[in-house]
Amino acid sequence: MITRRGLLTGGVATVTGALATPAAKAAAATAVADATAPATVTGAASGTATGTAVEPFHGAHQAGVATAPQAHAVFLGFDLLKGTRREAIVRLLQLLTDDAARLTQGRPALADTEPELAANPARLTITFGFGPGLFAAAGVDSPVRALPAFSTDRLEKRWSGGDLLVQVCADDTVTVAHAVRMIVKDTRSFARVRWTQRGFRSTNRRNLMGQIEGTVNATDLDRAVWIGAGPLRGGTTMVLRRIRMKLETWDAADRVAREFTIGRKLGDGAPLTGSAETDPPDYARKNRLGFPVIPEFAHIRRAHVADPALRLLRRPYNYDEGLSPEGESDSGLLFASYQADVAAQFVPVQRMLAEGDLLNEWVTHIGSAVFAVPPGCAPGGWIGEGLLG
Amino acid sequence: MITRRGLLTGGVATVTGALATPAAKAAAATAVADATAPATVTGAASGTATGTAVEPFHGAHQAGVATAPQAHAVFLGFDLLKGTRREAIVRLLQLLTDDAARLTQGRPALADTEPELAANPARLTITFGFGPGLFAAAGVDSPVRALPAFSTDRLEKRWSGGDLLVQVCADDTVTVAHAVRMIVKDTRSFARVRWTQRGFRSTNRRNLMGQIEGTVNATDLDRAVWIGAGPLRGGTTMVLRRIRMKLETWDAADRVAREFTIGRKLGDGAPLTGSAETDPPDYARKNRLGFPVIPEFAHIRRAHVADPALRLLRRPYNYDEGLSPEGESDSGLLFASYQADVAAQFVPVQRMLAEGDLLNEWVTHIGSAVFAVPPGCAPGGWIGEGLLG
Repeated sequence: MITRRGLLTGGVATVTGALATPAAKAAAATAVADATAPATVTGAASGTATGTAVEPFHGAHQAGVATAPQAHAVFLGFDLLKGTRREAIVRLLQLLTDDAARLTQGRPALADTEPELAANPARLTITFGFGPGLFAAAGVDSPVRALPAFSTDRLEKRWSGGDLLVQVCADDTVTVAHAVRMIVKDTRSFARVRWTQRGFRSTNRRNLMGQIEGTVNATDLDRAVWIGAGPLRGGTTMVLRRIRMKLETWDAADRVAREFTIGRKLGDGAPLTGSAETDPPDYARKNRLGFPVIPEFAHIRRAHVADPALRLLRRPYNYDEGLSPEGESDSGLLFASYQADVAAQFVPVQRMLAEGDLLNEWVTHIGSAVFAVPPGCAPGGWIGEGLLG
Repeated sequence: MITRRGLLTGGVATVTGALATPAAKAAAATAVADATAPATVTGAASGTATGTAVEPFHGAHQAGVATAPQAHAVFLGFDLLKGTRREAIVRLLQLLTDDAARLTQGRPALADTEPELAANPARLTITFGFGPGLFAAAGVDSPVRALPAFSTDRLEKRWSGGDLLVQVCADDTVTVAHAVRMIVKDTRSFARVRWTQRGFRSTNRRNLMGQIEGTVNATDLDRAVWIGAGPLRGGTTMVLRRIRMKLETWDAADRVAREFTIGRKLGDGAPLTGSAETDPPDYARKNRLGFPVIPEFAHIRRAHVADPALRLLRRPYNYDEGLSPEGESDSGLLFASYQADVAAQFVPVQRMLAEGDLLNEWVTHIGSAVFAVPPGCAPGGWIGEGLLG
């Protein structure tokens, strides 16, 4: 058996010997250079077009909100360590902003231990959100508060709350894992991980119940999503709900019952009153017996928001966390929504759903968190500077 | 509040009413047809080229072994229920073969509850392996047995053993989740889930330590992988090892120590004696002081197999299962290898590694399972028919 001590004494002696050759010296120099420059990947290891695609980091808004959703996401919820005050929070945010500015552009983080893994950004975005607890610790009035209770909530503490959100999204799983590790390392002196929620999306946008997600979404982002005035100007708010799906009993419902529950056809996502996914549902249309074609308590009717300025920007991911011995899956939806005003946009929709959505028979909200998403920053700036700077 | 009972009584009444219109009748007929035919996805929901790509199911060999590795994998280990005998095992395998033959070709399983999710095969492969316990239950001599103990093993029961393996791989996460659910449903009367292991790969083939995986791999599959005679002719064997990586302490090692440990450069994966990933390592070369350039206990030297007919076909996936509150990740490698002969090919390599691989300081084998992988089957046949039929 070789011990690490053995490697780091005998081993280093040998390496020092090896460094006596000019080629080895050059190789060592390259290795050092590699640690700070973008790692170059050659030959069989070169990435695909997806692998090297980059989303901008700096700008008026943070990336990861209006960005076309990537295939993979990890949502990290942190609790600040007791006694972490404004000055430390600012230092943490400066550190994390620097990490995000580098990693999203395919460059290693400042103290990156696996710089090669940064070479494949795969549309990586890293987005920050501040919970009420972060503002309290910083001694600043919070622009967000926890959601009111809904009658159908079955919230678990382990999936709820949090002082700081870091949302990491990319089209490559190793890219996500690497970015998460770098971010978590830099938070360690300031915060503890409260929860980790992993999600994924298919190219066909279907969730694990088979429905197409996100057909109706906010399009007028300047009114529905981005905040127009105040310290959060250019920012938004985010609600993250963990929604467990009871797939076992959902499977017991037939197609007619399912389409009736949703208000859309499963095959192509068209509303029951239309023939294409993007057809606007006709909520007034009745059948011969006088019943509405889209039922009174169908999911899409309950979630319908007539005013485009009040629509949520939904960016949901599926989750699937394994199987019980009996083969029941722990799966559902990480429902991430962004809106300028939680009280005016999110709460009324969720209240309507809680009061009477047929889908409630098969879905349960088990996690909930709310964050202020600060605006983006310019090169040299940091996320949150307008709020805490 | 709406109850499910309410939906399934009042709801169905309304639906029956709706079906009075010819259009609704036609829609219902379409829905029924959809449940057995490949679901068609239209408009904004159409899949990408990756989404609709198909790997063949029928043939001399099972798919998922020589298949170019897909981005996502779930390995399912099942234990047969007590008293499950040969006849029931045959029924189970016929059922699962039918599921795999359909799902991999983009068609719903026979009793598919979410047929739309089958429309996106994304190179889905479903591969079956039989553990010693399955042969014992069927009253057939097992061609495989558990591996001998290695000195560095720290095996946990929850990641080891199993009577039946189902390996599900695809380039789309929702495709994998759907196929797993269909498979698990059909096993429920016969078996319990013993373990679920989820893995992922990057386009750049790097693992979470930053190394490029699978540079040297079996290429002469007819000698190294496929068994040439006997009831397993056209089949192979599979070893699945769960290898935990201690990324925290690995990060503490510098680049020189890491390259010394592996025997390859981190930047491009070239051996320390070469300049490109595919250069054959020169194990004889010494530096000026007389030390080998690739150290005696470097990982690639210990894992080196000179005879190409004895090389393993490695098809590893990364795993990453979340974070402790302190931010330590539970991550590593699902090392899946396929070889014609476990005793002649896998065991000697693992023994060499256990006896003196520098990498052992940072990796621990915590799971182990061995399976016979039967040959493929023709249309109308089933996986395992030559062994149990």
